[in-house]
Amino acid sequence: MSNDLNQECVVGLDAGGTRTRAVFAAAEDGRVFGEGAAGPGNALTVPVPRLTDHLVEAIAQAVPEAARARVVAVAGGFAGATAASTEEPGHVNARTALTAALRRLGIPADRVRICSDIEAAFASAPGTPADGLALVAGTGAVALRITDRRSTATVDGDGWLLGDDGSGFWIGRSAVRAALRMADRRGTATALAVSVGRALGVPDDALPGDGDWSRGHREAYRMHVLPAVMAELPIRLARFAPLVVEAAGEKDAVAEGILDEAADQLTATVRALNPAHGERIVATGGLLGPEGPLTVALTARLRTLGLTLDWVPDGCRGAVALARLAHDGDDR
Amino acid sequence: MSNDLNQECVVGLDAGGTRTRAVFAAAEDGRVFGEGAAGPGNALTVPVPRLTDHLVEAIAQAVPEAARARVVAVAGGFAGATAASTEEPGHVNARTALTAALRRLGIPADRVRICSDIEAAFASAPGTPADGLALVAGTGAVALRITDRRSTATVDGDGWLLGDDGSGFWIGRSAVRAALRMADRRGTATALAVSVGRALGVPDDALPGDGDWSRGHREAYRMHVLPAVMAELPIRLARFAPLVVEAAGEKDAVAEGILDEAADQLTATVRALNPAHGERIVATGGLLGPEGPLTVALTARLRTLGLTLDWVPDGCRGAVALARLAHDGDDR
Repeated sequence: MSNDLNQECVVGLDAGGTRTRAVFAAAEDGRVFGEGAAGPGNALTVPVPRLTDHLVEAIAQAVPEAARARVVAVAGGFAGATAASTEEPGHVNARTALTAALRRLGIPADRVRICSDIEAAFASAPGTPADGLALVAGTGAVALRITDRRSTATVDGDGWLLGDDGSGFWIGRSAVRAALRMADRRGTATALAVSVGRALGVPDDALPGDGDWSRGHREAYRMHVLPAVMAELPIRLARFAPLVVEAAGEKDAVAEGILDEAADQLTATVRALNPAHGERIVATGGLLGPEGPLTVALTARLRTLGLTLDWVPDGCRGAVALARLAHDGDDR
Repeated sequence: MSNDLNQECVVGLDAGGTRTRAVFAAAEDGRVFGEGAAGPGNALTVPVPRLTDHLVEAIAQAVPEAARARVVAVAGGFAGATAASTEEPGHVNARTALTAALRRLGIPADRVRICSDIEAAFASAPGTPADGLALVAGTGAVALRITDRRSTATVDGDGWLLGDDGSGFWIGRSAVRAALRMADRRGTATALAVSVGRALGVPDDALPGDGDWSRGHREAYRMHVLPAVMAELPIRLARFAPLVVEAAGEKDAVAEGILDEAADQLTATVRALNPAHGERIVATGGLLGPEGPLTVALTARLRTLGLTLDWVPDGCRGAVALARLAHDGDDR
């Protein structure tokens, strides 16, 4: 380890809405020496002083004090920032916070590179591609065209109120809607009415049972579910997405329909980027990982567009690769 | 007038999310002597002391001081309350506030009747019906079965996050979604992109023009629209509904599709109440009035279910009718 630390090193950061992660690696080959993590790192929603603190905390964990003078480049993928514009507030905040954090830690890196968390995730794919398509399908949903390592076109990512069609939020909201529509007789019977009701603490006797679901119990169900959902942040609806996956696994037709529709929506989102046959698409987010509930359905649909999907867990590996490229003088 | 005030009188109240209205009328024939208005009257969201103040203000305007001793019955239709349950928080709040308001004004009414604003609107229809269907299609959307003047089954009314399908909110959100989907090329061209963009202050050069809408301008449009919408309360999306009506009037296919879909949704909401052929349906809300954008489309769809639609502007007339019935000893 002490020999390793005599060589030139880089730091890659993945700063998202939930936490900030730092990876410390060799500049020459990207071998990982250390990792660290701290609180949220969204460059638009976390105030700069707190963002700075989180960066300091994560980097300090990853990089031993004795090695800090050897860091030659740092790259950070931040939610709320993009490499495509150095003047937008998210980019400015991220650069300000990262510069301050490095100064506080005595890290002299001349080369600091800011991009979005999705641009970093795209660069995490094998071969560190510079051009192609990126798709995020987690709590939210967005697809990007990446050109020269920068996002150049965006589809969806419109947020829970206006879009994120096919996302975990969208699936979770669909689950509660299906339950309410069964309760008021607009929709067909679904196991989601029981599982969503249980998750929201509806008393057992107001849940649909084996026999008829009486009018009074239906009204009681609605009167319990509606205020329980509205008392929380809308984005919390994403937590019901696993209930849809579970019900679909048991062949509940309504749940299967929701997942099919989600895969269709995400396919339409990718298609709007007008992909060329054989283009690379790098995906991230829990719906599409090795255990992701939409992986099989979406892979099949994208194959008909001539696209194959590479999944990456996050932007850490890409951020390290971008820092190494910056050190080599490649600032694309 | 002085002779009129020597007879027995009643007060009807329509207390909604925006304002509280009071109507002072003859107990014998419902002839109106005076009206008053004050701030919001939702029994679940306006704290009881403030609700009491609003009731006092509206009633004091409607009922001259000299006539107050002659009031024999009061009925109020409150958003957030229902006649069907005297124990729910909204009903309890409404009764507490109204009782306190009457005491403060020296109104001795023995007979006080609380119902929902929708139950009062239903009673506003010609003949003061006791049974049938009620439909609200304004900012929100809900359909009720009314039995013996009380709501006995509810369809939708699930609020902006989970439902209100086909409502003014739903139409307004659809307008912004259509604009964003044109901007990211998921959707077809629509005049809504210009009208929604203008309403949100998008700079002229980022709006779609006669020629090609460039990639950069599309991205700038999205980056302006998304934070502008998220900076306001979600329910404010309802203000874009008139833009859809306007665009549909000029034969914009996307706007026409939104209004058609809204009429379909409201029809499905009514159909879930399992209406009998020839049953009465009383509607209220701005989408269905004499100038309402969905009046023609919905009337045609309901006709195929054997239903005819009576529209009433609000619950004031019904609240007066319910107060008169209470005075006659009919407390159904």
